[in-house]
Amino acid sequence: MNILIISAGAVGAFYGAALARQGARVSVVCRSDYAAVKRDGYDIKSPLLGDHRFRPHAVYREAAECAERQDVVVLTSKVLPGIDRVALLRPAVGQDTAILLIQNGLDIEQEIAEAFPANELLSSLAFIAVGRGAPGEVNHQSNGSLILGRYPSGVTPRAERLAALFEASKVSCKLTDDVVTARWQKAVWNAPFNPISIMGGVLDTAQMLARPEHEAFIRKAMQEVCDAAAANGHALPPKLIDNMIAGTRAMPAYKTSMALDYEQGRPMEIEAILGATVRAGKRAGVAMPALESVYAIAKMIEGKKRMPDSG
Amino acid sequence: MNILIISAGAVGAFYGAALARQGARVSVVCRSDYAAVKRDGYDIKSPLLGDHRFRPHAVYREAAECAERQDVVVLTSKVLPGIDRVALLRPAVGQDTAILLIQNGLDIEQEIAEAFPANELLSSLAFIAVGRGAPGEVNHQSNGSLILGRYPSGVTPRAERLAALFEASKVSCKLTDDVVTARWQKAVWNAPFNPISIMGGVLDTAQMLARPEHEAFIRKAMQEVCDAAAANGHALPPKLIDNMIAGTRAMPAYKTSMALDYEQGRPMEIEAILGATVRAGKRAGVAMPALESVYAIAKMIEGKKRMPDSG
Repeated sequence: MNILIISAGAVGAFYGAALARQGARVSVVCRSDYAAVKRDGYDIKSPLLGDHRFRPHAVYREAAECAERQDVVVLTSKVLPGIDRVALLRPAVGQDTAILLIQNGLDIEQEIAEAFPANELLSSLAFIAVGRGAPGEVNHQSNGSLILGRYPSGVTPRAERLAALFEASKVSCKLTDDVVTARWQKAVWNAPFNPISIMGGVLDTAQMLARPEHEAFIRKAMQEVCDAAAANGHALPPKLIDNMIAGTRAMPAYKTSMALDYEQGRPMEIEAILGATVRAGKRAGVAMPALESVYAIAKMIEGKKRMPDSG
Repeated sequence: MNILIISAGAVGAFYGAALARQGARVSVVCRSDYAAVKRDGYDIKSPLLGDHRFRPHAVYREAAECAERQDVVVLTSKVLPGIDRVALLRPAVGQDTAILLIQNGLDIEQEIAEAFPANELLSSLAFIAVGRGAPGEVNHQSNGSLILGRYPSGVTPRAERLAALFEASKVSCKLTDDVVTARWQKAVWNAPFNPISIMGGVLDTAQMLARPEHEAFIRKAMQEVCDAAAANGHALPPKLIDNMIAGTRAMPAYKTSMALDYEQGRPMEIEAILGATVRAGKRAGVAMPALESVYAIAKMIEGKKRMPDSG
C-alpha cells in the first residue's frame, strides 16, 4: 500500500510511522524539516510505538515531486484560512487515490469532497498529544487514538484496512459510519475549551473549571454546540456534557492544543474549531450567545498578534 | 473646611491636593506610603495642578487616629469584595459629616447610604489617569475631571462648594442631579472595555476595535448595558454608543485601568464595574449574554491569579 503523508508535522510523522511499521510504503511531504528528514528520517520518541527511527520511503518538499501512484494520501496540516488544502492535495491525487484527512475542526470535509468528487474521502479525528523537537524529532506524549470513517457517512474497505494497520501498531482506531456526528461531538469540548484557554495568558483545564460559575459558563457553551448539532441533524448523547466535564476533571490539569499554539506564537485553528461551529449553529437558527462572545474575543486576541506595536 | 481623604492612593492625593490649594484643611489616611507622606507630604507631578509638594494638615494610618471633626470625608479606595468601606469610614463620620465617594463602579452607594442614613452622601466619578511612583510620589498623566452629585439624586450646597474648590484648582467638576444615571453611562464603556482588555495578555483600545466584528461585539455588550440602564429607570441618550466608540477611536490607543491593574498584579474591580452591571440587568429581566460571557471569563482570569501553580 502506497501512502503519502502531506504536511507531515508531528502528527503526520507519528501516524505515518505507525502505518510504516506494518509494511505500508509511506512517503512524506514536509517543508520545514525537509533536510533533516531526507537525511535521517524521523526520530520518533513514543511510549506507544516505542522509540525508533522512521525512514520514509521517499521524502518530498512538495507533492508535485512525487511521481509514484498513491493508494492513500493523508493530509495532516492544520486547518487555517491561509492554507489551501486542495492545492496541497491536488498533485498527489490520482484516479483511485483515497484521501484521508487527519485534521481538527468541523465542516472541514466539504471543500475537499467538492474538489475531488470522484475520490474516496476518509475523515479522521485524532486524540493525541504530540510535538516537534529538533528538526526530524517527534515527541509523542500521550494518547494517539483515532476515529475514522468515510465522509459523509459509512465505512469502506480501505478505511477498514487502514484501521487494521493502525491497530496492529497499537494505535487505537475506531471506525465510525457517522464521522460528521463524531466531529460535532469533539466540537462540544473543543469549541469552548480551546479558545477560552487562550484568554488571560493561558488557562489550563483546572483553571477553567475552578469554580461552579466557571463550569456553568463552560456548560452553557457546550450546550450551545449540542443544540447546534441537533439542529443540524446530529443529535448527541444526553449525558455527553456531564461525561466530558467529569472526564476533564479526572485528568491532571492540562493545556489545550490552542493554548500551546498561542504560547508558541503559532497560528491557531480558531475558524476550524470555533468559527465553523458558530456558523453551523447560526445557519440552523440556533442561538449561540456564549460561543459568539468567546469567538469575538478569540478573534481580538488572534488579531493582536498580527498588529504592530502590540505588547 | 476640614476634609479627610481615606485610602489616599494616587487618586486621593491628587484630589486632596486640588482641594488643599484652595485653602481647605485636608488630612489623609494612608497606609502603604505612610512614613514617606508623614515626613515629606506628596510629591505631585501634574500638568494640570503643576508640579508641587502637597503637605496634608495631618497624616494618619487609620481614620480612628483622627480626633478632629470633619466636614467632608472622601473615600478613594478601590471597590473590592475584600475591602470593608463602611469600616474604613466609620471612625471619621460624625453627626454633620458629609461623605464623598470618588470611586469606580455601579451600585456602590447603597451600602454606604444604609450604614450612614443620617449623613449627606455625595458620589463622584473620576475620569483620570494617575499613578504612584516612589512612596509619596503621584504622577498625574491626563484628564482629571469629575462628575459629582448627591446620592440618590440632587445637588447640595456642600456639593456646590466642593465643585467650586475643584474648579478653582482647574479640575473640571460637573455637578449632576442624577449621579446614578451618570454611573450607568460610564458603565456603558467600562463594563465591556475594562474586562475584555485583560483577555489575551492585555488588549488596548485599538486592538479591541481593530476589525468590524470586534466592534460589533463591543457594541452588543454596550447595548446590553444601555438596555439594563433603561430597565432600571435610567434611560441613556440614543447616540451614546456611537459617540463613545467614535471618542475611543479618536484617542491614541490606550490601556484601561483594569488592564494596568492586571499587568501589575493588583486587584481588579471586576465586581464593581462588571458584576454589579450584570446583576442589575438580570434583576430587571434584561438578557445580558455578551456581558455574562465576558464576566465568566474575567472571573476565570481573576481566579487564576489566586491559584497555586498558575503559569
